[in-house]
Amino acid sequence: MALVVHKYGGTSVGNLEKIREVAKKVVTAHNAGDHVVVVVSAMAGETDRLLKMAHQISSEPDQRELDLLLSSGERISASLLAMAIQSMGYRAISFTGRQVGIITDSFHFRARIRKITADRLKEAIENGITPVVAGFQGISEMGDVTTLGRGGSDITAVALASALKAERCIIYKDDVDGVYTADPSVVPDARRLSKISYEEMLEMASLGAKVLQSRSVEFAAKFGVPILVKPTFGKGEGTLVTMEDEEMEEVLVSGIILDKNQAKLTVVGVPDRPGIAAEIFGKIAEEGVNVDMIIQNVSERGLTDISFTVPKSDAKRGLRTTKKLVSKIGAHDVKLDENIAKVSIVGVGMRSHSGAAAKMFAALSKENINIIMISTSEIKISCVVDSKYAEIAVRALHNTFNLGK
Amino acid sequence: MALVVHKYGGTSVGNLEKIREVAKKVVTAHNAGDHVVVVVSAMAGETDRLLKMAHQISSEPDQRELDLLLSSGERISASLLAMAIQSMGYRAISFTGRQVGIITDSFHFRARIRKITADRLKEAIENGITPVVAGFQGISEMGDVTTLGRGGSDITAVALASALKAERCIIYKDDVDGVYTADPSVVPDARRLSKISYEEMLEMASLGAKVLQSRSVEFAAKFGVPILVKPTFGKGEGTLVTMEDEEMEEVLVSGIILDKNQAKLTVVGVPDRPGIAAEIFGKIAEEGVNVDMIIQNVSERGLTDISFTVPKSDAKRGLRTTKKLVSKIGAHDVKLDENIAKVSIVGVGMRSHSGAAAKMFAALSKENINIIMISTSEIKISCVVDSKYAEIAVRALHNTFNLGK
Repeated sequence: MALVVHKYGGTSVGNLEKIREVAKKVVTAHNAGDHVVVVVSAMAGETDRLLKMAHQISSEPDQRELDLLLSSGERISASLLAMAIQSMGYRAISFTGRQVGIITDSFHFRARIRKITADRLKEAIENGITPVVAGFQGISEMGDVTTLGRGGSDITAVALASALKAERCIIYKDDVDGVYTADPSVVPDARRLSKISYEEMLEMASLGAKVLQSRSVEFAAKFGVPILVKPTFGKGEGTLVTMEDEEMEEVLVSGIILDKNQAKLTVVGVPDRPGIAAEIFGKIAEEGVNVDMIIQNVSERGLTDISFTVPKSDAKRGLRTTKKLVSKIGAHDVKLDENIAKVSIVGVGMRSHSGAAAKMFAALSKENINIIMISTSEIKISCVVDSKYAEIAVRALHNTFNLGK
Repeated sequence: MALVVHKYGGTSVGNLEKIREVAKKVVTAHNAGDHVVVVVSAMAGETDRLLKMAHQISSEPDQRELDLLLSSGERISASLLAMAIQSMGYRAISFTGRQVGIITDSFHFRARIRKITADRLKEAIENGITPVVAGFQGISEMGDVTTLGRGGSDITAVALASALKAERCIIYKDDVDGVYTADPSVVPDARRLSKISYEEMLEMASLGAKVLQSRSVEFAAKFGVPILVKPTFGKGEGTLVTMEDEEMEEVLVSGIILDKNQAKLTVVGVPDRPGIAAEIFGKIAEEGVNVDMIIQNVSERGLTDISFTVPKSDAKRGLRTTKKLVSKIGAHDVKLDENIAKVSIVGVGMRSHSGAAAKMFAALSKENINIIMISTSEIKISCVVDSKYAEIAVRALHNTFNLGK
């Protein structure tokens, strides 16, 4: 009798037919002897529908009000799924974030969980009733409804798995069937990983892999909750995200990540004196533009170029902000290059084995791909390249590190 | 500085444009010096959309689950209206039933309010913030979301007005601009009443007038909350539902109510012996059929006819149930007549003045309208007539009791 948390995303409960299918999956697991706690997202499209109304009513809707509004979406899917399980002759009960005692801070729209009591959940489980919990939401200490930000339902699932000491948290995905060595649409022989460490998953998430949100992985790592990413309606075994083990360390590189959602800004002819970089990036941070990689070229005749990458969606804003600074700091110009891509290799094996960087650069060089920027961490190396070579780079690296089937 | 509760129904907040209009009304009242507490229903169509999904998922959805599902509707409109008020530069805050401390019993789908704390409401009012409360919902002592049944948002509004000792509760209607002496579509010179007693309003509601639900009027009467029924977007002064005063007693009849949603069942040739009526109506009550009027004809040769009226929607079920009983009780047959209508006169003046019944019967007789059944209470007289004469009867009575403009 294992206690398992199932989490179903918005597309998995996107319509009534799918909700019925999910109910069948839950009942099957229940009949196989599991104690299942279900966490659901809002039906696909519902959150967008509510957000759109809010933005039509107000150009800047209050975040406390938004939280009450958006939390409705998960309440609707949770109650419908509980009804669907009941209509199959099984006992189920829906719970809101408040009812399972998810207490958060008061930072609306991006609240963090402070504690979880889960009393009613435990009671339901003891009585053989399947609880269906509305994901994404909690309640502040003053009794206001809060939401947990992007990927909030995953966080709910992981947090409940931790509070209940569940054997694992299964995150069902409707669009992918696990974590791959590379995007299969780019690399045809990309392989599903049966296991991956929290740390690798975190790097992959922050590098642009969309399988899991960083925050839920961080949470899982912190509390040691094993996450199994599995297809909702397909068959595959999925990928287990868990603690690093020796087997994982033997592999130099676990995956190749491609992020084409990047743009590069270069401030040309910057006087090479202290405080300039602080001034540029201070201003950019004030404007809420997310900077990823930064490089400063070698200074020539007292002038230098500073390049940095930002998400494409922030590019125009970043350009405007930087242009305003140009004359103030005595630089020549700012250039925007949107035709770049970031290619990264990730693997905990890099910690114990050297040579990954050299192997990566050699592979790109062999394909005549110029490396524009480089950044590294303990378990990853990222290279910015011309976007037209992005797919070639990914395939070459996938091959070089023997990641294929 | 009067404290006033405003209640807006589903059609009044039926789309974003209307929500903005309602926000303007609230702000206007606020600027005129009122402390306004707003109660809203779900946007028109939303409750039906949710109910439809529930019934597609389950033939008999659990009522606790339904309550969680349906309560979302009012939360959505409350948060949107709060945002709309904020976007006009005023302070507003949305509250759920739980947040304003509406504690109910645990009879889901038709819960009754046990107590109201209203602490957060009082705090908001003291700080000059306009609270927008999601109507129709409360919370049971074990923390489950409950709903208050039909007309639930009106009950929320009246209950909050009582708890806050508000000067009045204004129930805004999008379809009518007050309580009329008769349905203006039947009687062209029907007049809006500026004032009506709780008791008359209760009779009218139970006789089929759709302006207010009986339960909210009962609640208002019990706690002495004056209700003003007013048009949401039109101009009129509306109708004040309040305690009976001398002025009201001087009027013999306040209004004529027509209910065409009636059917008559007659059990023919019933043996005239004790216990038969109990058997018939016991069985009918078991089947959940609502019986309104009952008459038993004079017995001839030990046999009698028993007629009773039921809502048209219950007629077929009532007929089936009664037919099953016919042979058991030794009756001859059951007949169903759907071509009837109930015409009623209502007025607190009937208590102190006699002669209303005689005047009513004479008026109908003058139009050659046959009276099929009669029932009376202290302040009303109802006659069942052939439905084809229903409108003629209403107009004749309206004229007889001088109710026109």
